[in-house]
Amino acid sequence: MKVTASNISIIKRLLGSRGSRPLRSILNKLEPADIASLMGQLTPNERKTFLETLVSIEKASETLLELPSNQLVDALAQLGESGMVQLFLQTNEEDVAYFISHLDEDDRPMFVAKLPKQRRLKVEQILSYPEGSAGRMMQPQVLSLDSSLTAEQGLLQLRTKSQEQSIYYIYCVDELERLEGVISLRELATAPPNTQLKELLKTQIISIAPQASAEEAARIVAKYNFIAIPVLEDSGKLLGIITVDDVVDIIQEQATANIYAQAGLQEDDRVYSATSFKIRNRLPWMMLNLVLAALASTVISLFEATISQMTVLATIMNIVAGMGGNTAIQTMTVVTRGLATGDFNFIKYSRSIFKEVVVGVSLGLMTGVTAGVLIWIWKGSPLVGVVMCLSMVTNSLVAATVGAVVPITIHKLNWDPATGSGVIVTMMSDICSFLSFLGIATLFMSLFGMA
Amino acid sequence: MKVTASNISIIKRLLGSRGSRPLRSILNKLEPADIASLMGQLTPNERKTFLETLVSIEKASETLLELPSNQLVDALAQLGESGMVQLFLQTNEEDVAYFISHLDEDDRPMFVAKLPKQRRLKVEQILSYPEGSAGRMMQPQVLSLDSSLTAEQGLLQLRTKSQEQSIYYIYCVDELERLEGVISLRELATAPPNTQLKELLKTQIISIAPQASAEEAARIVAKYNFIAIPVLEDSGKLLGIITVDDVVDIIQEQATANIYAQAGLQEDDRVYSATSFKIRNRLPWMMLNLVLAALASTVISLFEATISQMTVLATIMNIVAGMGGNTAIQTMTVVTRGLATGDFNFIKYSRSIFKEVVVGVSLGLMTGVTAGVLIWIWKGSPLVGVVMCLSMVTNSLVAATVGAVVPITIHKLNWDPATGSGVIVTMMSDICSFLSFLGIATLFMSLFGMA
Repeated sequence: MKVTASNISIIKRLLGSRGSRPLRSILNKLEPADIASLMGQLTPNERKTFLETLVSIEKASETLLELPSNQLVDALAQLGESGMVQLFLQTNEEDVAYFISHLDEDDRPMFVAKLPKQRRLKVEQILSYPEGSAGRMMQPQVLSLDSSLTAEQGLLQLRTKSQEQSIYYIYCVDELERLEGVISLRELATAPPNTQLKELLKTQIISIAPQASAEEAARIVAKYNFIAIPVLEDSGKLLGIITVDDVVDIIQEQATANIYAQAGLQEDDRVYSATSFKIRNRLPWMMLNLVLAALASTVISLFEATISQMTVLATIMNIVAGMGGNTAIQTMTVVTRGLATGDFNFIKYSRSIFKEVVVGVSLGLMTGVTAGVLIWIWKGSPLVGVVMCLSMVTNSLVAATVGAVVPITIHKLNWDPATGSGVIVTMMSDICSFLSFLGIATLFMSLFGMA
Repeated sequence: MKVTASNISIIKRLLGSRGSRPLRSILNKLEPADIASLMGQLTPNERKTFLETLVSIEKASETLLELPSNQLVDALAQLGESGMVQLFLQTNEEDVAYFISHLDEDDRPMFVAKLPKQRRLKVEQILSYPEGSAGRMMQPQVLSLDSSLTAEQGLLQLRTKSQEQSIYYIYCVDELERLEGVISLRELATAPPNTQLKELLKTQIISIAPQASAEEAARIVAKYNFIAIPVLEDSGKLLGIITVDDVVDIIQEQATANIYAQAGLQEDDRVYSATSFKIRNRLPWMMLNLVLAALASTVISLFEATISQMTVLATIMNIVAGMGGNTAIQTMTVVTRGLATGDFNFIKYSRSIFKEVVVGVSLGLMTGVTAGVLIWIWKGSPLVGVVMCLSMVTNSLVAATVGAVVPITIHKLNWDPATGSGVIVTMMSDICSFLSFLGIATLFMSLFGMA
């Protein structure tokens, strides 16, 4: 069943009436992701009633997992203590940990304490890893078998073990729970019944540590086309797995983070976020840019005498700055994206910087000559055209170099190149633009008496 | 085995010697993605010898699939006709179609004609769908079973059928090959042997048409956390499946495309692309921006008289333009990303535009007042400060409105908002900045005799 406008109005009507049975039967026919997006169209009051019914069906936790972070926080608050306890009962450990990490720091221990001991230990372990780490993303319940079994015995064991999770790989562990090897479910299911699991075992396994970043896990899964990757302690003990559906989410979030970083936005500033939150989050960036723009202004102010003698310079200096900015941003975007997607497996840093500078300067030369000729025709002064052209070429050299070197340097320092590069690169390119254009103009004026 | 610097030097040495046996045994221990990145470090001559050995091992096609597009084109050219025929023999249909789509239009029919009839028909069918469509991405070999079997009979059939592909779902089709339902391999493998497949069948299936875009398929797989999605003809006939590992690639490429679009870059302009290619691809964008910057210049030129009376205006007008540009880009980025990731499931367009305008104007007011006061202190003229503040507020209104409305409009017209929005939004914000700042200044001069 799909979510349509008429469905939503039916649901809204059902929320008004008593008895949750009809609503529950509709929800059972919908996919969790669709239920989550439907919740965005309810009023706060409707949402509260809705949540009370939702928490009584099996899909509750899957649905809540699909909510944007800020809406999840609200939903958990609306559920209240008893609702959350009910929710956690039917939720697996990694998702309980995810929900609890969305509560106030002070409220967390209480909810952790309410879990049965076995589950509590697992949730505590997950929460002990830093936010954004592989340990936080992993599913701690892994289906593992003893490698001394036959394929038939293995399948029989699978039948009796928990059926909650999707299984794609079967992990074999030794008596100390250290990972020995992995078998795909397909191999297990289609092997002759008497085959020893040992024979099917793939023992060269790419794994990840729980402390590694979730992005690193995503990069490996994406690179090698895995469906899941095991998370191992240093000792080789199997802690859990990270599956490809979580990887898809991580990749989406990382892409958003990269796109947002260029515009100085916080990751959770989404179209549906609260207005006050957006203002608070964007203000520092706007203020920073005010300072940087003022810095460029002081450079221009140095040449106020030149401008007052030749106002035509003021009418065209924005062209130099704009073109320099474009070169800087194009170079920076290509290099930053290359760092994020692992393209530097295919080229050396020094070679890439050289390439980008050649490209930038070539384009600077072509557009510079074009602009110079146009300005000559438009403003009737060949010398202004020459100033324009010279400063655009100078500027393209600086912009391309900075655009390539800054993100690589930031990356080498183990910071995120997507975050810091934009501000530095744009500022340097702007300052260089005004300095070169007005500087060369001033020089020409004193040499040739241009004005 | 991992790729290390010493490995690469061993491989380089082996390429110099005769006999490919030792090289082949090293390649057999490496993952396809690692072999692909290793190829980037070979000289063209080494790469030719390397490809001759590579094509003789099983991983050849998987490895070539990991290459960036432009390097794949080169590799296929180096393989030559006989090498490609050898490669295609061991490659499944969707990958043959992918390779062939990287050849010159004129060469394609020859290679298609050389395939055995059954495979040729499948490859021709895949190539008949437009580039970037779901039909082009799908794997046409799907494991399907007759729903009248029992679980035990089903597993037995799986054993005898082709083992090449990863299987996660089993598809059941009727006598006309129309999809009846789907069973996860886990359910099949763990069901009691006598269970009828009909009982296990999930019949409410989300599918996609072959003409739909690959992005649409990726969005569905990501949204519902699928491992694969079936591709169905209108008649319900099962044509193939798209798997999550391909979806991960599509999402990565789409993110790159979104990031690139903002900077006016083509998708295949990567750090390793050829310099001449980069220059050719970026030149139109740079020229377009030259024209747009010139357009903003003509606006400034209208006020040359004002500037010549008050050069201080020229030294600070870049602040107004910069701040307006930032507001426009921030708004546009949030809205465009929301359109790409499906965030508008959680908010209405009109409400989102209103929200962004409130945010933009609030920030415009705060930064405008700050800037006005600073300018007053710096330049010693309260009136210039007032002009600054008024134009920044006006400007933030225009920038936020344009930044939100333009991408939504482009999206509603069924174009890609990531591509066109940037140019339009930045141009409008720039022109408005200079117009409002210099316009208000001119008005104040005539009213209060400011200069």
